[in-house]
Amino acid sequence: MPLRFPPRTAETHTPPLTIRHLLDSSRLSAAQEEIVYRDQQRLTYADLHRRIGQLAGALSALGVTQGSCVAVLDWDSHRYLEAYLAVPMMGAVLQTANFRHAPEQLHYALDHAGAQVLLVHRDFLPLVDALRATLPGVHTIIALMDGDDTPPPDWCAGEYEALLAKAAPVTRFEDFDENALATTFYTSGTTGLPKAVCFTHRQLVLHTLAAAAALGVDDGVKLSRGDVYMPLTPMFHVHAWGMPYVAVMLGMKQVYPGRYEPERILRMRREEGVTFSHCVPTVLQMLLDAAGEEHLDGWRFIIGGSAVTRELAARARAQGAGLIAGYGMSETGPVIAIARAGDDLHEAIRSGTPIPLVSARIVDDAMQDLPMDDAACGELVLRAPWLTPSYPGDEPASDALWRGGWLHTQDVAAMRGDGSIQIRDRIKDVIKTGGEWISSLALEDLIAARDDVAEVAVIGIPCPKWQERPMAVIVPAAGRQPQVAAIRATLGEAIAAGRISRFCQIDALVCVPALPRTSVGKIDKKAIRQMVLAGAAPSFPPIAKVQS
Amino acid sequence: MPLRFPPRTAETHTPPLTIRHLLDSSRLSAAQEEIVYRDQQRLTYADLHRRIGQLAGALSALGVTQGSCVAVLDWDSHRYLEAYLAVPMMGAVLQTANFRHAPEQLHYALDHAGAQVLLVHRDFLPLVDALRATLPGVHTIIALMDGDDTPPPDWCAGEYEALLAKAAPVTRFEDFDENALATTFYTSGTTGLPKAVCFTHRQLVLHTLAAAAALGVDDGVKLSRGDVYMPLTPMFHVHAWGMPYVAVMLGMKQVYPGRYEPERILRMRREEGVTFSHCVPTVLQMLLDAAGEEHLDGWRFIIGGSAVTRELAARARAQGAGLIAGYGMSETGPVIAIARAGDDLHEAIRSGTPIPLVSARIVDDAMQDLPMDDAACGELVLRAPWLTPSYPGDEPASDALWRGGWLHTQDVAAMRGDGSIQIRDRIKDVIKTGGEWISSLALEDLIAARDDVAEVAVIGIPCPKWQERPMAVIVPAAGRQPQVAAIRATLGEAIAAGRISRFCQIDALVCVPALPRTSVGKIDKKAIRQMVLAGAAPSFPPIAKVQS
Repeated sequence: MPLRFPPRTAETHTPPLTIRHLLDSSRLSAAQEEIVYRDQQRLTYADLHRRIGQLAGALSALGVTQGSCVAVLDWDSHRYLEAYLAVPMMGAVLQTANFRHAPEQLHYALDHAGAQVLLVHRDFLPLVDALRATLPGVHTIIALMDGDDTPPPDWCAGEYEALLAKAAPVTRFEDFDENALATTFYTSGTTGLPKAVCFTHRQLVLHTLAAAAALGVDDGVKLSRGDVYMPLTPMFHVHAWGMPYVAVMLGMKQVYPGRYEPERILRMRREEGVTFSHCVPTVLQMLLDAAGEEHLDGWRFIIGGSAVTRELAARARAQGAGLIAGYGMSETGPVIAIARAGDDLHEAIRSGTPIPLVSARIVDDAMQDLPMDDAACGELVLRAPWLTPSYPGDEPASDALWRGGWLHTQDVAAMRGDGSIQIRDRIKDVIKTGGEWISSLALEDLIAARDDVAEVAVIGIPCPKWQERPMAVIVPAAGRQPQVAAIRATLGEAIAAGRISRFCQIDALVCVPALPRTSVGKIDKKAIRQMVLAGAAPSFPPIAKVQS
Repeated sequence: MPLRFPPRTAETHTPPLTIRHLLDSSRLSAAQEEIVYRDQQRLTYADLHRRIGQLAGALSALGVTQGSCVAVLDWDSHRYLEAYLAVPMMGAVLQTANFRHAPEQLHYALDHAGAQVLLVHRDFLPLVDALRATLPGVHTIIALMDGDDTPPPDWCAGEYEALLAKAAPVTRFEDFDENALATTFYTSGTTGLPKAVCFTHRQLVLHTLAAAAALGVDDGVKLSRGDVYMPLTPMFHVHAWGMPYVAVMLGMKQVYPGRYEPERILRMRREEGVTFSHCVPTVLQMLLDAAGEEHLDGWRFIIGGSAVTRELAARARAQGAGLIAGYGMSETGPVIAIARAGDDLHEAIRSGTPIPLVSARIVDDAMQDLPMDDAACGELVLRAPWLTPSYPGDEPASDALWRGGWLHTQDVAAMRGDGSIQIRDRIKDVIKTGGEWISSLALEDLIAARDDVAEVAVIGIPCPKWQERPMAVIVPAAGRQPQVAAIRATLGEAIAAGRISRFCQIDALVCVPALPRTSVGKIDKKAIRQMVLAGAAPSFPPIAKVQS
């Protein structure tokens, strides 16, 4: 027999999963709850709703319609939140542009997305001024003067607050197809041009629901409507991990810190009672450094992006901060997994259990399942209702991303029988030596635990005999000079204890003053490899000797 | 410009919102978590998955395909949970048949839904035996012998456990259109024939996600993956409020009590550590009575269906049980609103704030909004992605249900500016007197607080002068005999204090040994009105005098 479908009446109403409906339940219940921007703005949700209507009215007057693309270059602000909502609610596409991209990358991204209107913080007006002549698609630039009374440059159509004030507000947003595009942004690839990812209304609504459910019922996070939220991953980066949408849906108090300045962030935490944030380890480190003796009790962080060292986790714990691991990436909305409470903190920090509606597998090159024994490593592949459907405009990369009907993360992971995922490495950072894949992260952990090491990256360098050999690239601790023999001794103990394979022993190290990073603050191993192989930093013993 | 849609690759995979995906995240993570049925069965989730495959295999061998209808008549059990999952996962429709319906109502429901296969607990075999000759569409009846070794009657195709044991299990469930029907059941209308409601896969998945998010982040419920769940509203009744689907998605330990016997329920709570349930006030009362001196600390209940009296709430609190108000109905999946923590307990018990994706209004007959001032009362109308699309087969009722594009609850409510809803009455139970609508519930609360009253229903009786007048129908407390003058004195105080209108004063009362109830345990005011007007119980003063 065929499937049965329910009869409907002429007036049966079935709301689509569009972003405007995320506001349905908090519109009234959180009407008096606050949204705070630095020391400059203190709005209620009632104000937010009014301003969303004004922003849509202003954009509409400037020619924005369904299908238009509106790009934002701003620090984390209430304005960004307004754009997160108003732009998709108009049926337009929000581009969250990455101001840390190189100018030519940013130019490519704005051009490729077809951005027509830009909302630009005054800090980025010079950057945009240099690009705008070669962006013919951009017909309107709105300046976000951020409290500065200076008039915007004459090539801007106006100032954000002034435009909102004079706008005829949109009072009613219409429903439309939930599969329409809502957002797009560009991955900060370390190779070649940035790649676009994109998400539909339906995808963002489902991501918001599943993330809220997972964070609420998790004994480690215990997300509550009473929490006070402050983003600490930039809002241009994967929807600030989707959390502004979660916060809006639940009607939580929200605190936007502007540019990330540790002293201000810490002051706002104290003054506004912030309890829930998310960030990469580098930002956590910066906050703990700035906090000094100050206790951060009651502040929980979802940590993602890269692994937390044992040391950082211990420091955070000592200062009262709660850490919960999250896993995701630009292509995945981003949330895919969060670590269960009760997992060992250090382990947890690189692990997670899939949230509702997510399926995860680890597979070999032929897409065959690998054993879930916490040892076998393979590529993590995913299915969920909120994964980017493609890299728009890049068919070969899109085909590779979705090869075999599963999204390929390019992360190497091990899984346990309970479905928890431990990310071991990026496929491109795995070191292939003596027929084995070894994880640079495992070696980095061991080396980073030494007193004489401030930071470390382990890379594979070409070797005719073993294919690749691991090399440690070290930022020494202040006044220290780590020696090859000492590092080898540390790794030797782990090899003797059976914790790593004997192929993991390093043959050489390079000391450098700092590690190169990508535009989102991740260690850039490609740049490190190039730097080392170009001889920009001396190796002990010399690389030539290792490679011979 | 037109809306923009994302490009896809040939292999981009977009999972539909079908019930099988509720199992994705807990399949591995909860593999060793338990599902307990009375003292008879103790399964793991791994067992549950195996048995879902076996049940689907057994049903398939009996001719069940996509679009078939499979009806269940069982107490709350692991078998019911298996049917909640396996039947919709096959693309078939699950009918949760109400064994408390009168036989002719049950016959109507099975026939109207097109049930082809019945799963019948041995307690209900005689009931089904009497109906089956006139149910030509039913081709297969499976007996649930529930541990009894007696062979099933020869008109049964077999016994549930035996059929599962010999089934060729389905190992892979396919995806299909998320708008396909998943479940249907019949409302226990107090008038005429039962009315069908129905829900699609998409609706149940969205209901599950939104309910899980709302319950997890609510400071009163704080639903956690570590909670142990036991349903205490029957599984035939609106998907046991949707909670088995929530529990499965989150991988919670689940405890199924079979037939509701207070001593067994209390013993299972102690032995299995139950922390989370839901029930109507009558069941809560029954449990508190049976618990006696036993403390129920850590057991939270969502209470819905009808109002909790102040007394019952105080007793529950004294015995350690946590109460959270929920609002919903058969037509709504059911969850629409839950009460915020911090609300006054007694108030909360009839109130709630809409959960994510729900829009609520109170309107007059012309669908105009009424003020949200906690005073104005109007019909509560709703939108959400999981409301029944119609009453299948009943066009006039369906049209009335969805008049104006909003689902009409037939509940009279007041709202506050914060969006919280307080149900004041059913439209049909509102007493229309002197040009005002007065709420029978407000009067019942005041009267029920008296020592000499065990239970009370206030009904409107026809009156030529005032249209209707309120009358109290009272079950006296043991050994007491409440008098009209005393009840009037109680109400008089509330009138003097401005808490109720002077039109609320009763003119007469009727004492009865018990109040008639509907098949789901609600007080049946229609039956009470008929009983009183027929003179089945004497009124003081006589009704005739009141009506003259």
